[in-house]
Parts: sequence; structure tokens; C-alpha cells
Amino acid sequence: MSEAADPHAPVRAGIPDHGRVPKYFAVKAHLEDLLDRLGEGGLLPTERELAARFGVARETVRQALRELLIQGRVRRKGRGTVVAGPKLVQPLSTGSYTEGVRRQGRVPGRHLIGLEQLSADPLLADELRVAAGAPVWHMERVLVADDERVGLESTYLSVARFPHLAADFAADTSFYAFLREKMGLEPVVVDERIETVLATPREALLIGTPPALPMLLLLRSSSDAAGEPLERVRSLYRGDRFSFTVHLERGT
Amino acid sequence: MSEAADPHAPVRAGIPDHGRVPKYFAVKAHLEDLLDRLGEGGLLPTERELAARFGVARETVRQALRELLIQGRVRRKGRGTVVAGPKLVQPLSTGSYTEGVRRQGRVPGRHLIGLEQLSADPLLADELRVAAGAPVWHMERVLVADDERVGLESTYLSVARFPHLAADFAADTSFYAFLREKMGLEPVVVDERIETVLATPREALLIGTPPALPMLLLLRSSSDAAGEPLERVRSLYRGDRFSFTVHLERGT
Repeated sequence: MSEAADPHAPVRAGIPDHGRVPKYFAVKAHLEDLLDRLGEGGLLPTERELAARFGVARETVRQALRELLIQGRVRRKGRGTVVAGPKLVQPLSTGSYTEGVRRQGRVPGRHLIGLEQLSADPLLADELRVAAGAPVWHMERVLVADDERVGLESTYLSVARFPHLAADFAADTSFYAFLREKMGLEPVVVDERIETVLATPREALLIGTPPALPMLLLLRSSSDAAGEPLERVRSLYRGDRFSFTVHLERGT
Repeated sequence: MSEAADPHAPVRAGIPDHGRVPKYFAVKAHLEDLLDRLGEGGLLPTERELAARFGVARETVRQALRELLIQGRVRRKGRGTVVAGPKLVQPLSTGSYTEGVRRQGRVPGRHLIGLEQLSADPLLADELRVAAGAPVWHMERVLVADDERVGLESTYLSVARFPHLAADFAADTSFYAFLREKMGLEPVVVDERIETVLATPREALLIGTPPALPMLLLLRSSSDAAGEPLERVRSLYRGDRFSFTVHLERGT
């Protein structure tokens, strides 16, 4: 556990160029081997057992487990810890969350948190091409995949453009399907910005994650075939459960 | 600081649906106002002064500052803490890091950590279309923008395809410029996968970030106009300093 790294060995992930491997990180590497052997759903020994096995303090095991939890390698199940499945891989596309999740053979779901009218601040007004102060819908939904809460989505829409949203749209269904089927509209041009952020306490509560878990934040603006703005969307995905892919070709 | 939230108020970022705002989070909201007033580069009061001002324990201030640090809202400068600048916004494109940073009016740089030959494992061999066990280059470089270390990039290349890399390529310059100017090649099709990960201790040391800072990991495979694989790249960007954008159009 505590042997010094060979100074002439090629540098490798996790091994500092000088000095020793931090103890918790060595434990983490051993745990990663164990996770591979246990396979998805496999139950880990208790912290106490792991501390005894590796000859380290429980706090050292706890630090290693904390990182594995944040990275989505393990998850809590009841009072135990089990090996998690791989991250969901969602293509960045003009399509919706619903379409992306379905393409992976999983069942998408959404739970409405709130649908309310706000006054557009100047930035939002500019993006939706309405007057500052004009009414906009704010629809907030928890995103679900196979009954697991995986994200939180806030959609902002012009009330003038979608006057009957509250009455016509079933908030636990796909908004893009509604757009297409009921209004003959679809997003044709989409601009997206991706970054990593920490969940706020409220967001963590709604998604059911530990507070301050790193999340992937996607900010989307989309417009229809006529170039008219459709929506502004702020989507937060669990960083331990999601990855995104994009296919790019030069000159297209 | 500790008044209960109005249960009828519309829910808002950071405010749990039930219960109180966590104390550190309320401090964080006050600090965010302060950062806006101070402006980029402005020096924050000490932890002790902030604790006195908000009437909370120093540990509470420390927790709020820790999140602001992870999110890139503040940064350490000498023994103090100052307001950080906005995140860099890098378009996802078939272009290189160098081109992306330059487009933002910043000066890109790279520091070579190591250039070595490895034997391709089956996965890498498949991606580079070489035999398993065939020699591949592994070039590792720290990415720099305006003298600030912002990421770490590992590039894997077939030695058969780039036999003279060690002799011909100046590792502190743009690899894509080398491809274009010396070999008449360029990436035409690029597939990229994005996720958030924690920096390993070694990575944190090389990039100069606190350990376990959330990072954005980009895994890239690119091929040239003839469809031949060019490279496999693993790039790690500071989550507190980078965001990525993508422009998508339906049916292109």
C-alpha cells in the first residue's frame, strides 16, 4: 500500500510525478479492481471490512468510496453500496431528451415540478424575441430514465406563442412530440452550451443526488424552420449517470 | 440568514421545497452578490472578516468559498482570494485546441510532459486500425491559455503512420498545424464524447488544480478525408475554466 513509486517508471494516471500515491487513491485503485470482479449490481463489503482488508483507516476507505460515488462507479442501495451500471450515452442532437433516452432502449419519463408564468428579463426576452417584461412560461420537470431520476429541465417559452400550453400540453409527455403533432413545429437549429456545475441543495433534493455532486449543465436555444425562436432550455444532468456524444464533419 | 422560506413562494434555485435554506448556501448567495459588486480581479475579505460580517462560523464561510472555487467564480491569488473571470467558451469543432483558444483572442500554449511508445491494447488498436500490440505514440501535454494551465491532453497515434514524430514535430506547437503543413492531412470526421470526471491526484498536480476538482473529459477519435483514423485523444479541461458550445442543424 505504501511502497514508493519507482522514480524511473513512466508516469501513469493517478501516480504523481514525485512523491507517493495518496493512500486513499491506492485504495480506490484496489476498489476499482474489485468493482470489475463483482460486476454491475454486485454488493461491496462494508467500510469496516474494506478498512481491515486494506489495512487503512475507515476514513481513507470513505474518501475512496466518495470519489467512486461521485464518478458513478458505485451507488447506494438501501444501507449498502453496489456496483453501478455504465453512464448513459446521449447524442447531442436537435432531438429531445425523450428521443435520446429511447434510442438507448430505456424508458424516458418526466415529472412536472411547476408550470408558471414569469416576466421575461432582458436576456431571456432577447433570446425568445419578445419584449422585455413579456409573459413567458417556465416549465420545470424532473427527467427520469427507467424510473431513475437523472436530471432537471427548465423550459422557457413565449406565452404569446404558446397561449394554451397549460391546457393543451400533458406535462409528463414529450414537449417535442407536442410541438410536432399539435403545432406542426420542430427545432431545426439548436445551439447548446455545455459545462460542469455543482447541484444546488434544491436541485440535489429534486434529483435525489448528494448535494454538490458535479452535474452537466446544457443550455439550449432552438428555433424552427422559419428561424423563429422556439424555446430556451436549461437542463441539468447527473454527472455520474450521463455522458454526451457529438459527431462533427469538417465544412458541414 | 435563518428565516424559514415562505411555503407558498414559488420554488427557486437553491431553495429547497421544504425546510430551510442551508446556512452555507445562504452565505454563498450573499458572496455571489459581493463578487458581482467587486468585479473581476477584486479581492475578497478574509474568511474571518466574512464570518463576522455574516454572523456565521468560519467553516460555513469556508464551505461556501469551496463551492465558489470549484465553480470557478473565485480563484486563489497568493494568500488571498479574488473574483475569477468568466469561463472560456470553446466551440466543439473538427479544429484543434489551438484554433479554439485563438478564436477567443487568447494565446494557446502546450508543455510537453512525455512522448513515449506503447503497445496498443485491443481497444486502441481497433480505433487506430492497427494490429493489437502494434507500437503507438502516447504524447501527453499540458494545455495553456494566456500562461494559465487549463487542461491535459493525451494523444495516441500509430507509429507506422507517424514514424518520424519524435524528430519532426515540435511538441510545444499545434499538432493539427503539423498535420496540415508537413503531412497534408486534416481531421475531417470527428467523434467526441463529453463527460464530467474528477481529476486524479497526478492530473491535479500537472494542471495545478485542487485534487478532485470536477473536470470536463473529451474523448476524440478523428479520421482524415480518406476515412483513415488519425488519432485518439483524451483531453481533460478544468471544469471551473471551460465550457463548450455546439451548433446543430436538423438533417445535416
